Amino acid sequence: MASVFGEKIKISVFGESHGEGIGVVIDGLPAGKAVDTEKVYAQMARRAPGKDKTATARRESDLPRVLSGMLGDRLTGAPLCAVIENTNTRSSDYGNLLSTPRPGHSDYAAFVKYKGGNDIRGGGHFSGRITAPIVFAGAVCRQILEEKGIKIAAHIQSIGSVQDEKFNPVNIEPELMDRLSASSFSLINPDVEQAMRDEVEQARLALDSVGGIIECAVTGVPAGYGEPMFDGVEGAIAKAVFGIPAVKGVEFGAGFESAALRGSQNNDPFRFSGGRVVTETNNCGGILGGITDGMPIIFRAAVKPTPSIGQKQKTVNLQTEQNAELEIKGRHDPCIVPRAVPVIEAAAAIALINILD
Amino acid sequence: MASVFGEKIKISVFGESHGEGIGVVIDGLPAGKAVDTEKVYAQMARRAPGKDKTATARRESDLPRVLSGMLGDRLTGAPLCAVIENTNTRSSDYGNLLSTPRPGHSDYAAFVKYKGGNDIRGGGHFSGRITAPIVFAGAVCRQILEEKGIKIAAHIQSIGSVQDEKFNPVNIEPELMDRLSASSFSLINPDVEQAMRDEVEQARLALDSVGGIIECAVTGVPAGYGEPMFDGVEGAIAKAVFGIPAVKGVEFGAGFESAALRGSQNNDPFRFSGGRVVTETNNCGGILGGITDGMPIIFRAAVKPTPSIGQKQKTVNLQTEQNAELEIKGRHDPCIVPRAVPVIEAAAAIALINILD
Amino acid sequence: MASVFGEKIKISVFGESHGEGIGVVIDGLPAGKAVDTEKVYAQMARRAPGKDKTATARRESDLPRVLSGMLGDRLTGAPLCAVIENTNTRSSDYGNLLSTPRPGHSDYAAFVKYKGGNDIRGGGHFSGRITAPIVFAGAVCRQILEEKGIKIAAHIQSIGSVQDEKFNPVNIEPELMDRLSASSFSLINPDVEQAMRDEVEQARLALDSVGGIIECAVTGVPAGYGEPMFDGVEGAIAKAVFGIPAVKGVEFGAGFESAALRGSQNNDPFRFSGGRVVTETNNCGGILGGITDGMPIIFRAAVKPTPSIGQKQKTVNLQTEQNAELEIKGRHDPCIVPRAVPVIEAAAAIALINILD
Amino acid sequence: MASVFGEKIKISVFGESHGEGIGVVIDGLPAGKAVDTEKVYAQMARRAPGKDKTATARRESDLPRVLSGMLGDRLTGAPLCAVIENTNTRSSDYGNLLSTPRPGHSDYAAFVKYKGGNDIRGGGHFSGRITAPIVFAGAVCRQILEEKGIKIAAHIQSIGSVQDEKFNPVNIEPELMDRLSASSFSLINPDVEQAMRDEVEQARLALDSVGGIIECAVTGVPAGYGEPMFDGVEGAIAKAVFGIPAVKGVEFGAGFESAALRGSQNNDPFRFSGGRVVTETNNCGGILGGITDGMPIIFRAAVKPTPSIGQKQKTVNLQTEQNAELEIKGRHDPCIVPRAVPVIEAAAAIALINILD
Repeated sequence: MASVFGEKIKISVFGESHGEGIGVVIDGLPAGKAVDTEKVYAQMARRAPGKDKTATARRESDLPRVLSGMLGDRLTGAPLCAVIENTNTRSSDYGNLLSTPRPGHSDYAAFVKYKGGNDIRGGGHFSGRITAPIVFAGAVCRQILEEKGIKIAAHIQSIGSVQDEKFNPVNIEPELMDRLSASSFSLINPDVEQAMRDEVEQARLALDSVGGIIECAVTGVPAGYGEPMFDGVEGAIAKAVFGIPAVKGVEFGAGFESAALRGSQNNDPFRFSGGRVVTETNNCGGILGGITDGMPIIFRAAVKPTPSIGQKQKTVNLQTEQNAELEIKGRHDPCIVPRAVPVIEAAAAIALINILD
Repeated sequence: MASVFGEKIKISVFGESHGEGIGVVIDGLPAGKAVDTEKVYAQMARRAPGKDKTATARRESDLPRVLSGMLGDRLTGAPLCAVIENTNTRSSDYGNLLSTPRPGHSDYAAFVKYKGGNDIRGGGHFSGRITAPIVFAGAVCRQILEEKGIKIAAHIQSIGSVQDEKFNPVNIEPELMDRLSASSFSLINPDVEQAMRDEVEQARLALDSVGGIIECAVTGVPAGYGEPMFDGVEGAIAKAVFGIPAVKGVEFGAGFESAALRGSQNNDPFRFSGGRVVTETNNCGGILGGITDGMPIIFRAAVKPTPSIGQKQKTVNLQTEQNAELEIKGRHDPCIVPRAVPVIEAAAAIALINILD
Repeated sequence: MASVFGEKIKISVFGESHGEGIGVVIDGLPAGKAVDTEKVYAQMARRAPGKDKTATARRESDLPRVLSGMLGDRLTGAPLCAVIENTNTRSSDYGNLLSTPRPGHSDYAAFVKYKGGNDIRGGGHFSGRITAPIVFAGAVCRQILEEKGIKIAAHIQSIGSVQDEKFNPVNIEPELMDRLSASSFSLINPDVEQAMRDEVEQARLALDSVGGIIECAVTGVPAGYGEPMFDGVEGAIAKAVFGIPAVKGVEFGAGFESAALRGSQNNDPFRFSGGRVVTETNNCGGILGGITDGMPIIFRAAVKPTPSIGQKQKTVNLQTEQNAELEIKGRHDPCIVPRAVPVIEAAAAIALINILD
Repeated sequence: MASVFGEKIKISVFGESHGEGIGVVIDGLPAGKAVDTEKVYAQMARRAPGKDKTATARRESDLPRVLSGMLGDRLTGAPLCAVIENTNTRSSDYGNLLSTPRPGHSDYAAFVKYKGGNDIRGGGHFSGRITAPIVFAGAVCRQILEEKGIKIAAHIQSIGSVQDEKFNPVNIEPELMDRLSASSFSLINPDVEQAMRDEVEQARLALDSVGGIIECAVTGVPAGYGEPMFDGVEGAIAKAVFGIPAVKGVEFGAGFESAALRGSQNNDPFRFSGGRVVTETNNCGGILGGITDGMPIIFRAAVKPTPSIGQKQKTVNLQTEQNAELEIKGRHDPCIVPRAVPVIEAAAAIALINILD
């Protein structure tokens, strides 16, 4: 396993869905910085389930307990460990034998990797629940970034076929950033919310699920950060974002669309504006040669539809080595995209805090 | 700078476009393994320029000299250093002051980062030429992977609006893999080559350039490799691929398309076939929860159009702090996509050799 | 901060002496392996204070709670987090201003580094108490190493001027290894225990403290492990051992004595013995060129006398910027060497598990 | 292999004694900094052999060629690669079969590790010759450290039984630092040079070799650098220094002597002096809790006697699996300690540049 991220600020995530607790250790935070824990909890609440019909009805108590690294409301510079207890796990037996892996889940791949030794209850360490500590870590890191004038906000660009507007990549108002990063159903154009909810509801009624795209912006990053080649900003953000379950694609700026463009369309002309260098367009997503150019960083993550669906599915029985069918019981998110928005923001935060001094 | 990749097999790339030499150190290769240098050169030839009108006419002598790590044709287990001399650099003066950054290039971002101290001649360390050592490293690594039955091959999925067929993600013939990975204009359906070349030629005549998408397949990787969360296979490949200049997006399996699918469409049903577990579709691109599931790994990289174009472009003069215009002289690739194919394969190779034992 | 160790098996230690809790996350452990928790507790008991007059009388409840990474008594392959609650911290105020740094402690260096933001109560993250999680991690790792036939044991080579015998470096009985690694006052020759205790008692009565040397052996490591140069076995063990507070020197085999030897004395002649290659002496401590040679690994760590002493000491007042005097109140270990023995063994375990496959 | 050091400034060493070339890539150097190449060559000359009877008579041309990372005399910020050609290797055959490993050398351990595939000619990658690139890297790094007011200098504390004076650890004159770091037989008290040379000559006449201790000081490092626990300054320096062949022990400040001291003797009292905090003694070697305290960093490295000696030695024949005798031909350094002095300084430089901002 390597649920560890970062070189300067090292984030080590632990926990299994039905274990005793989940959490994170963050090593390398600056001493003396005050952390607004209410803001941290607010980010965690955006990710927490049970808020509405788009999410599972199981209640979680996701408030973390900080064991170290803080004194009162200030960071001490020592590793910060935050733990979220799993209060409601009720798993009396430890028989861990996996028979029928769920399509689209890590079950089969993990069964082979761990030779059946991993904790499969609720997906174990692969559960979406383990993104809660990532949001915690991101919420702490983003407060440090905010002191440097950096804002991170994402929105639901699409759910199924329903689209939100995209960011204006050369001019993103701070108020929009603030509104999005506080929202639990984050949209640039709130008018599409109902259509999106309808899309989710239709999937739910069909015992199905639906995916979407999350677009994330980071404003206020000065030009000149990141490294060429393998430690570029794109690679760092991509590594963090692909660490989130269900993400299957990451693109920056014009991304895959740029492949169909001509250079004269895709190049972003430089201009002086108010004494500083800007670009007239931002097809590069704020990153050139792996290094920030001072424009907003814009990236998009493709989130696949939740693999847990109520319909009967084809699978195999690993014990009998026969083909089999599977019907997943219980309630499951028909769409995790809204709840994934703060997780994507958190991934961006932990990537960027390792890049910025 | 951090042109270093890998934990187990560490690849350190060096060189600037107009410096004395470029190359790579590969630390951690297994002792005793024979390397077919002709095959290595063949990969480098696929990337080398000057083969046809889609590429720059400047000649390069890209044959590397191995300084260490090999004895005869065998690896010694010591760090392998390969150097490619820059024979044709002719840069009499070291005046390195950048005045007008080229749109779409790293010039401006690097100017800020390095405070004007970097070598800007030909793009310096950011030049596409520095991908030659990556291809060298990838060619060595893929020979080690081939011994485990793993093949890596990519093709030009699109140039501009012209499309090749996609891989059949559940069944890729070894012959196709071999043909693609030996081709200098790599296509599943060779009939589209002329249309693609026409697209490039039209861009060239318009003093413009054009981008494209490269699709890459890796066959023969057993199930159970990779780590959950931040060291998953997707993140590792993405980090390597985003290290290649001009890549702006990476997706796995159905990728961004999966965002518009329902779970019942996107989930890949498991089946037994010939005694082993397979999936009937491969929307996950061979990776579930960051771990391989034994199906082909499929990913796509978006390559932006070459930023160097002959048209007059808007930029700034960093010395006078005025808006300015720029006309880039000389011949430039109107499309780097064909030459980028072996670089993408190489990136996959260096990512995977760090994941597989 | 970087209380993180290892590339393959990553150990992230957290906690402050008077914080809510201390603990460790271990990422990369193999799935399915059974862990004998009684043996883990036994190692932690060796380090725990309050056993006799050589140690502080403050009681600790050092039994860790495992939050993740285990299912029943087996490792799941997911990150293992163990937490030890601090039950007895009683620190009502968060006023953290340091006035008079204790000589020999990290107080002053940490004050400068953290600009006064660190938790100074009880030494904070620098407290010897934070070695408890290291012992936990080492105890888990050594059980995995034991399955490969590897034993780790250390003894008190000296306290002050009182010496134990040294290991016979070419022939260490398994029974001796087992006895030492289960002992709370670990000696090859138990007859010296009283003299050592007298030495400690004399220091205590003089309101003083005393240091010592710990010698550690690792048996059963096959030849051929470790890497040349910076990832050699010596460097890896040294990095782990210098991570333990109060260690000021590390040497392997003949160590500093070899500096006064001739090559003909120091070289270890090779012989065949029972069909395998051995050396007749073991001045190299089982490591040649950074790589194991199959003989026992032998190293020694110098432990400085506990800096907390009851005598009045000269220091400075950082607030008034005046010279000052300091009298440290409370009871303190006059000698931490006996309790450091299992910590040194644990450091060896976490270093070696990262080297061995 | 892992001949790679550092997280911020990554140093990748390559080369084998009788290969085509040896060298180093340094990734992460600051752009724009001027490098005095004469000073770099001067450091390399200190390490080069052939200067007198204490060293081998084989001539080397150790002047490196910089392939990248410099433009004129300035760093570009791109990875710096320096190559030293091996001009005099004359190894016609690649038969690499090792029969009789040399006692005290890495031969046997490497044979097992690399299964006979490594380059054994002249020790291959384990040769002392591979320290030349380390000196190059250290010489570049120390120039960057010098700009911050940091000086690094070492001296021969002992050869065999002949002792130099030790550093006054609380007051080291800059002139002494400069003199030592420019000397090829570096002594605080030059009067002992003849006695040391006699010790070496006696060993040489006896077809033997002799070891020694090198003491190194680093002045000008401010208080507050380094990290607690595993990334402390002691661990970082130790990892670099143990990367140098023949080093068998590393200690800081009073080191192993502190084990016999009382706390009241070993603690370094704080005082204000000239407005800044100093310590009256420096038994901690300038490091408390892994963090610098602003006093000189003092450490010592034990260098074992050169294992290559002319006397007949006992070994094994790995092909016939019989005990055997070995007589090493050719001329060999009877004492490498004088030439190891600049290598130790270089190791300190590459360790510290990764710690200081």
